[in-house]
Amino acid sequence: MVYKEKNDTIAAIATPLGEGGIGVIRVSGADSIQMVDKIFLAANKRALADRRSYRAVYGKISDPKTKNIIDEVICILMREPHSYTKENVVEIQCHGGIMPLRKILSLLLEWGARLAEPGEFTKRAFLNGRIDLAQAQAVMDIIKAKTDASLRVATGHLSGYFSSNIRQIRDALLEMIAHYEAAIDFPEEEVDNIDNIQVMERIEELKVKINTMISSAKTGRILNEGLVTAIVGKPNVGKSSLLNRLLHSDRAIVTDVPGTTRDSIEEYVDVDGIPLRIIDTAGIRQTDDEVEKIGVDKARSYIERADLVLALFDGAKAMTAEDTKIIELIRKKNAVVVINKSDLVQNLDESYIRKQCSDSKIIHISTIQEEGIKELVETIKEKVYAGNVVYNEGEFVNNIYQLEALKKAGQHLEDAMKSLDNDIPEDLVVIDLRSAWEKLGDIIGDTVNEDIIDEIFSRFCIGK
Amino acid sequence: MVYKEKNDTIAAIATPLGEGGIGVIRVSGADSIQMVDKIFLAANKRALADRRSYRAVYGKISDPKTKNIIDEVICILMREPHSYTKENVVEIQCHGGIMPLRKILSLLLEWGARLAEPGEFTKRAFLNGRIDLAQAQAVMDIIKAKTDASLRVATGHLSGYFSSNIRQIRDALLEMIAHYEAAIDFPEEEVDNIDNIQVMERIEELKVKINTMISSAKTGRILNEGLVTAIVGKPNVGKSSLLNRLLHSDRAIVTDVPGTTRDSIEEYVDVDGIPLRIIDTAGIRQTDDEVEKIGVDKARSYIERADLVLALFDGAKAMTAEDTKIIELIRKKNAVVVINKSDLVQNLDESYIRKQCSDSKIIHISTIQEEGIKELVETIKEKVYAGNVVYNEGEFVNNIYQLEALKKAGQHLEDAMKSLDNDIPEDLVVIDLRSAWEKLGDIIGDTVNEDIIDEIFSRFCIGK
Repeated sequence: MVYKEKNDTIAAIATPLGEGGIGVIRVSGADSIQMVDKIFLAANKRALADRRSYRAVYGKISDPKTKNIIDEVICILMREPHSYTKENVVEIQCHGGIMPLRKILSLLLEWGARLAEPGEFTKRAFLNGRIDLAQAQAVMDIIKAKTDASLRVATGHLSGYFSSNIRQIRDALLEMIAHYEAAIDFPEEEVDNIDNIQVMERIEELKVKINTMISSAKTGRILNEGLVTAIVGKPNVGKSSLLNRLLHSDRAIVTDVPGTTRDSIEEYVDVDGIPLRIIDTAGIRQTDDEVEKIGVDKARSYIERADLVLALFDGAKAMTAEDTKIIELIRKKNAVVVINKSDLVQNLDESYIRKQCSDSKIIHISTIQEEGIKELVETIKEKVYAGNVVYNEGEFVNNIYQLEALKKAGQHLEDAMKSLDNDIPEDLVVIDLRSAWEKLGDIIGDTVNEDIIDEIFSRFCIGK
Repeated sequence: MVYKEKNDTIAAIATPLGEGGIGVIRVSGADSIQMVDKIFLAANKRALADRRSYRAVYGKISDPKTKNIIDEVICILMREPHSYTKENVVEIQCHGGIMPLRKILSLLLEWGARLAEPGEFTKRAFLNGRIDLAQAQAVMDIIKAKTDASLRVATGHLSGYFSSNIRQIRDALLEMIAHYEAAIDFPEEEVDNIDNIQVMERIEELKVKINTMISSAKTGRILNEGLVTAIVGKPNVGKSSLLNRLLHSDRAIVTDVPGTTRDSIEEYVDVDGIPLRIIDTAGIRQTDDEVEKIGVDKARSYIERADLVLALFDGAKAMTAEDTKIIELIRKKNAVVVINKSDLVQNLDESYIRKQCSDSKIIHISTIQEEGIKELVETIKEKVYAGNVVYNEGEFVNNIYQLEALKKAGQHLEDAMKSLDNDIPEDLVVIDLRSAWEKLGDIIGDTVNEDIIDEIFSRFCIGK
């Protein structure tokens, strides 16, 4: 991989903006220690440049020109190569307000640092070989994780568990390629004769592995990005009660994720590790009365936008025109039919729903008696995990970039097998094998090009 | 001071919530190191308990029960008494997402830590004698500082500059008290005769010092809390242009301070260090056309709420009924008359304004030619600093609690002087002197009671 590396010293505020006890400014680059020494005075008067790695040093940051003290800080010194970026890194811990953070950052910029681009610290960690591209992406996934389960996927990736699977497949491919190439380059030598049947079996094995990973992608992406869910039903059928039950079910919490702007707040309901992004949650929660008025008209647009629909019906009452309209809307959708008020005498024509929505599971609940909620949660989990073994979350493919690379690699292996089957010359088979090897390399960043790397890291936050 | 101290181990997320590169969880208390060791595995396998103070240690946090890795972290170890709280402190630096922070915090709570109350770390720093009460309050002021100047006030307080002034006055008082008490307790001994005239001179000196501090309070509080400012004038007189000029003037920046909830965003315009909180800034900035429609009716309510009014008039046009109404409204207010369009031929009856608003300075500006803005900024600064010397910002009284204590201390000194003047018995003079000494002690926390301390720290943020 060719990549124009920048080795200048970069700095950025690494903690979220806002009022907090602690704020951190991260500085990385060959000159970072000398640069911080210009504005930092340790309580014991010793320069950071004279200190050993992994020391925390208490002191004050002041403006060398005005002598004004900006803040009391603790500097954490990490010398290359044992740091986040494999470069010299200083982390300046100050009070968590906006002014001290900004003042310290602007001093660093004044004294020669460059403002880091989004993700530039992690990009350097990748370019300097501390982590691969899948691990680098996992860093952002950890920061954005919405539930326990999504955190497990991300830490699995960061620890290299996912990458090692990719590497194993690549190594196997490389072995085959080497074998073929030896046979091609030295046809007269006594290279072991290649048994095409055996090779095809071997490729088939690798294809199965890749397909398993591909099939995990749906779950992985849902855990990573959340499942857009609509709760629909006629007025007063219990939509807000159901939402409240999901919110209050054993492990459910609501995650308010304040983004960098005030408009980007997203809300997820944690349903046993699965982040459900309920359409119009805010509306549902703020005004229970209002949401109960939401009828079939709005349900149509909700259903269109949703990955999962929870369609509520009143078990105690006979079907209405609104119910049949909703049944019509969910027929071709990924839906769960939820029949509420199981604690009352049932009057709903369930067989009609069963016939119309034969693909949807039917669950009876009582939001008042708290019945059936657990079964509903299990049903949602089954839908999301869809046969993927839960304890292997660290192996899940969790973004579209990885998924696309795997699909292309799989396609190249398919082509290689066809070629072998049709006795196509071996050098063409090698081209397919090598293409598969390269596509897998894109995932861990071994073969990927500069533009893609820039694009991936530009989606990071500043200071990471 | 009697205070029931808690010595249990507390933990809290210390960085603002949101997505960021780094998040920090702070743990403090006798058992904090052992507690973190239960969930932390250092890369070099050594326990934190075996490491020396001020070491940064890289490793992983995992759930001891499930063995799930939560995140890669760096632990910073600070042994008592050289830590923020003077207790054993561990700071856990993890990735800055909500899930890793919450998971690590909940593990700590599971393994014996208690969730820290707001301000509890700083409260411990105060109770354990590392900082006094004025310094403790300065911590929060640093976090909330809105401009350079407010940061200078706060760091001046944190560094103890303000407290040392209080201590000097208290020491002088204590000397007098001791002298009087010796004379009272041992009337027959040869205690130096007390010269009441000399004592009165001495008290007068201290009173002057206290009054100087009191007179700084207005400026201090404005720098700390911002100056609520209204820009009023008839439609299309240039209100939004003026705001934009203030925003774009040399050192002006807008500070968006995202609070803990999405509704608490406050916006300040930094006018050369003075945080102006412009009423309805959002409206003014978002829709320039809308604000220009804001007329006299709204001006009335703006003026009522404002500490400072910038009243705009069109210099190129004759006075209108709206203008005279605004002149009427600002007559008794802290206002600056701003006559816009100084680049055009002047037709305004300025003498009328001058007569009606004799207390208000009149400034000519041209928002188009950028004329007069600097003079306006200087006028605002003069109003805020009101004779307080700028380079002493660290001495400014900056909250009402300190101001009230100073006023009461001053009153007690006044009473002491009256008593001396009227030859009231010396033991009654001593009571006044002692009361003044105690009131000053409230400021640095030497004599203050538990309820007040609890109340002060409850206004802190969590994790500080």
